[in-house]
Amino acid sequence: MSGEELQYFDDLLEYKKVPKKTILLHEGEICNFEAYIIKGCIRTYYIDEKGMEVTLQFAVEDWWVSDIASFHDHTPSSMFIETLEDCELLTLNPQTKDAALAKLPKLERVFRLMVQRNLSVLQSRLFKTIATSAQDKYIDFIERYPNIPQRVAQHYIASYLGISPEFLSKIRTRLSKK
Amino acid sequence: MSGEELQYFDDLLEYKKVPKKTILLHEGEICNFEAYIIKGCIRTYYIDEKGMEVTLQFAVEDWWVSDIASFHDHTPSSMFIETLEDCELLTLNPQTKDAALAKLPKLERVFRLMVQRNLSVLQSRLFKTIATSAQDKYIDFIERYPNIPQRVAQHYIASYLGISPEFLSKIRTRLSKK
Repeated sequence: MSGEELQYFDDLLEYKKVPKKTILLHEGEICNFEAYIIKGCIRTYYIDEKGMEVTLQFAVEDWWVSDIASFHDHTPSSMFIETLEDCELLTLNPQTKDAALAKLPKLERVFRLMVQRNLSVLQSRLFKTIATSAQDKYIDFIERYPNIPQRVAQHYIASYLGISPEFLSKIRTRLSKK
Repeated sequence: MSGEELQYFDDLLEYKKVPKKTILLHEGEICNFEAYIIKGCIRTYYIDEKGMEVTLQFAVEDWWVSDIASFHDHTPSSMFIETLEDCELLTLNPQTKDAALAKLPKLERVFRLMVQRNLSVLQSRLFKTIATSAQDKYIDFIERYPNIPQRVAQHYIASYLGISPEFLSKIRTRLSKK
């Protein structure tokens, strides 16, 4: 994109500082943002029938966060989006996103590639969730996201792996003895 | 799109008849197609470390099938794509897809929305995989895809749900008694 085009896009983005532990989206709300993370850590999660949290994703610097289905179709979301650290974000809402795409059709490609990357990470995660033992899932997780364990509470990682915090603690002890 | 644009796109698509039980993509190969299903049923699956199949997706009429990460980045795929029924497909390869996108930028949007739909189905599936009992997963599956159980073998559905065929059989028996 040209300097002028980038400037136009930049002007549409809204800069936001959000303190940690802020819920940006509640289940049942319509998601009206796509947020690019300049700084901080965010997680998306569901609450299951038994009231347990299931973490879908951790997102850190240089990732986008949204419930794109809710954002796009204006349907109530079934997930929560929460800051785990103080965050600095650049956000689009449906109007500014439409304006950006109308003026800069090249962005369609950028957003498509972004969604594709997200899809392919999720496919591989689903496979591992079904096919891998809890211990191997944890090893894979720390290899893939080496900085997350220092940044988020253990019980969030347990809810990402689909195991109890106690079981995660056992796995960590077992691995530390190796 | 105008009639002329649609015609251009149509001319790029390659029509293929593929008999059932054909493996369209093997693990380790680079995926060189995106296939639109006119007729038939296809599944994508992984093979885990123990040699067990894990079904990622069933696709029927009006869906697209590909390993988009492999297709896009020209990297070896980690999945298999196999026809379960005789299929009629319309396919794009990397060259014809690039040609279509260069000539018809509006297609970027079409493909982005397609990937978004896929992502959002997969998010919800991942949540259910982690949060739901095997029996509820099966009930959800037959509600969402009422025609699939008549079309594909039980053991494929078991490998989609991440359970053994014997356990699926028990669940079906239990449900039929209700």
